[in-house]
Amino acid sequence: MRMSDLIEKKRDGGVLSPAEIRWMIEGYTRGDIPDYQMSAMCMAIYFRGMDPEETYELTMAMLDSGDRIDLSAVSGIKADKHSTGGVGDKTSLVLCPMVAACGVKMAKLSGRGLGHTGGTIDKLESFPGFTTALAEDAFLRQVDQVGFAIAGQTAELCPADKKLYALRDVTATVASRPLIVSSILSKKLAAGADVIVLDVKCGSGAFMHTEQDAFDLARGLAETGRRAGKKVTAVVTDMDEPLGRAVGNALEVKEALSALRGEFREDLMELCLTLGSQILVGGGAAADEAAARAMLEKAVSSGAALEKFAQFVKAQGGDSAAVYDPALLPQAPVQMPVPAATGGWVRRIHAQDVGLVSMRLGGGRASKEDEIDLAVGVVLNKKVGEAVAPGESLGTVHARTEAAAAQAAEMLRACFEIGPERAERPPFIKGVVR
Amino acid sequence: MRMSDLIEKKRDGGVLSPAEIRWMIEGYTRGDIPDYQMSAMCMAIYFRGMDPEETYELTMAMLDSGDRIDLSAVSGIKADKHSTGGVGDKTSLVLCPMVAACGVKMAKLSGRGLGHTGGTIDKLESFPGFTTALAEDAFLRQVDQVGFAIAGQTAELCPADKKLYALRDVTATVASRPLIVSSILSKKLAAGADVIVLDVKCGSGAFMHTEQDAFDLARGLAETGRRAGKKVTAVVTDMDEPLGRAVGNALEVKEALSALRGEFREDLMELCLTLGSQILVGGGAAADEAAARAMLEKAVSSGAALEKFAQFVKAQGGDSAAVYDPALLPQAPVQMPVPAATGGWVRRIHAQDVGLVSMRLGGGRASKEDEIDLAVGVVLNKKVGEAVAPGESLGTVHARTEAAAAQAAEMLRACFEIGPERAERPPFIKGVVR
Repeated sequence: MRMSDLIEKKRDGGVLSPAEIRWMIEGYTRGDIPDYQMSAMCMAIYFRGMDPEETYELTMAMLDSGDRIDLSAVSGIKADKHSTGGVGDKTSLVLCPMVAACGVKMAKLSGRGLGHTGGTIDKLESFPGFTTALAEDAFLRQVDQVGFAIAGQTAELCPADKKLYALRDVTATVASRPLIVSSILSKKLAAGADVIVLDVKCGSGAFMHTEQDAFDLARGLAETGRRAGKKVTAVVTDMDEPLGRAVGNALEVKEALSALRGEFREDLMELCLTLGSQILVGGGAAADEAAARAMLEKAVSSGAALEKFAQFVKAQGGDSAAVYDPALLPQAPVQMPVPAATGGWVRRIHAQDVGLVSMRLGGGRASKEDEIDLAVGVVLNKKVGEAVAPGESLGTVHARTEAAAAQAAEMLRACFEIGPERAERPPFIKGVVR
Repeated sequence: MRMSDLIEKKRDGGVLSPAEIRWMIEGYTRGDIPDYQMSAMCMAIYFRGMDPEETYELTMAMLDSGDRIDLSAVSGIKADKHSTGGVGDKTSLVLCPMVAACGVKMAKLSGRGLGHTGGTIDKLESFPGFTTALAEDAFLRQVDQVGFAIAGQTAELCPADKKLYALRDVTATVASRPLIVSSILSKKLAAGADVIVLDVKCGSGAFMHTEQDAFDLARGLAETGRRAGKKVTAVVTDMDEPLGRAVGNALEVKEALSALRGEFREDLMELCLTLGSQILVGGGAAADEAAARAMLEKAVSSGAALEKFAQFVKAQGGDSAAVYDPALLPQAPVQMPVPAATGGWVRRIHAQDVGLVSMRLGGGRASKEDEIDLAVGVVLNKKVGEAVAPGESLGTVHARTEAAAAQAAEMLRACFEIGPERAERPPFIKGVVR
């Protein structure tokens, strides 16, 4: 087999055989196939696509390139959740304790933030002493006993994906459906859960800009997951504005705690109820979605979910007192409101730009090695569809210095589009694909 | 500027600016832009193409990546010829002396063969003592005094093209019109001639399989050449069967000598008259094509072209006695005729496969380092459209051993398609594009 022949075949619209896909991924992982051939192949796949069989084989070949987590030591149904990435996305912090409080266990591996998107691990480090560096046996024991754990990746899961993603990132070949499907699913399959829910973000702040693209991706994920023998549900959700109102590590943790106390609802809670009910039904813990939503609501109103979250923070070495007293979390010295220049109705809030405001304040990383400031960020006072009077606050900037705050305030104001007419807010949950 | 942004722009159908193309080619030549980004760009160009302005800028950026040959020391009009490569293509050996005998000088750089195609330099080395390693001043002096020279490349012409072509070769991105145009023309522009004729081969033995593709390429070459201020003519010619009847180094030299003596005509002489008349008219040596053809015919019938060829061989250190006595050229010990299994009409002769027969006999290189046997090859007795009786010879294999000859004979027989009905021979010259 020659890689140049496989590139030519795909370039001309051919279908790669399972043996060809295996050979290619194994050779690339070993370093026998050079980056310059793989990037040409990725661009050919970008233009020609892959059929469901090819996408499945690619996913399985990437899965088989590394280790798998064996969750069999954990009793009961194990679930996992993944988001394609957005701004202000603190969903896992709220969803995991809600689901665990309802009896379905969640074994979640997470990462750090890069660019305009944050990372769950960074957010959790807002709790003094918290660690996500868990050995595999400690991770499994915690999932079994507490009901969920969120850890950084230690085992070498899907090295093929790691290498391929880094290549795609610098060759404009990220935005290809089969490549995204195989990247996401290979990692989720390696993580070993029985039930997988995927949050496919859609809009200007997301990877998939149009609903059409997001649903295509969701269908690809569900179908490939089914071929792999897993219950995979993909929920397409809006990311035209940030999720919730807080963007920045400790600020997002505070909003998550507020949601777990039942105080903050809006789009964040709607997303957690939607994803959570898919998990409970998929895992057999609820008969239908209505029953599942009721269970999840009760987990919040009874305080069980917040209690579960405190157990989780404590189990991973964090100060659980901060769960009940968020003032113990990092706090920025400067808080500057951002008044609106004109009145009207908020028509759009550019999510990606809001993420960049937080990054510039020090809350995110421009490159992998950067240190981040957990306290800084932005809290929106207005969201799309809300009325705003001239001079009324659009949001508050949390900064380290007055100068940084003033600069960020200008940037945040520019993230808002305000018009004279009332803007309809588009539905937040766009659909569920199984 | 970031290369990943340029790849994305081209991937999405955008037009690269002159500054972007310059930056890309300069960075790639220096090694600042890695192969894996350039190959993704080439694949994006394969799918999206380039407009005439982009193609021109790419050509000029590649031209400017290296040295140029300065032909100003040579008096009069200087012409150059290039072929996109075919099997049995000994055109330069016949064309150059014919044109030089008519007063237009030809300064030709040539290469060695690889795979199923031969190289002019290899063929010329059939003359004992012949060298193509000429210093630039010796090359220029010979062009001026003898009227033509054929040398190997010494100056570093278009290093960007050299690097890019090697990359395209292993990433299935060779067959892209703007990439082919810029590769061919940048080298021809660097070689410094005033008048350039290009032989664009078309058919199963060529790079461009269809007439449509060949004419598109021809138009791209002519237009880009015009933008660069040169007289460029592209002639589209048939390569569904080998050119002439001989395939193999010394065998092709013998056929070329036969053509220069006026004995062998057919497609080879028609091609030389067509290309030559474009050169003479383009160079102002003839008023029109009819006058040019008459001059070229006379150069052959008078013996002037053959005499010019003998001067050329001598000037480059070769034994010019072999020009008048081809028996002095290398000769293979075994000559085996290949009888036809069935009678009928020759419908097709797979040119590429005939080239591979010669390569297997030792007349061509599978990889760059291979030594070649100048004596071996194939001489066709039948060409497309000719009748053949059962047992009649289709051609003769010239081999080093009986065993090699027997194996090659089987392969050569399989190159022929013979049918019961008379096959029309397609026109050999498909068109001229200026």
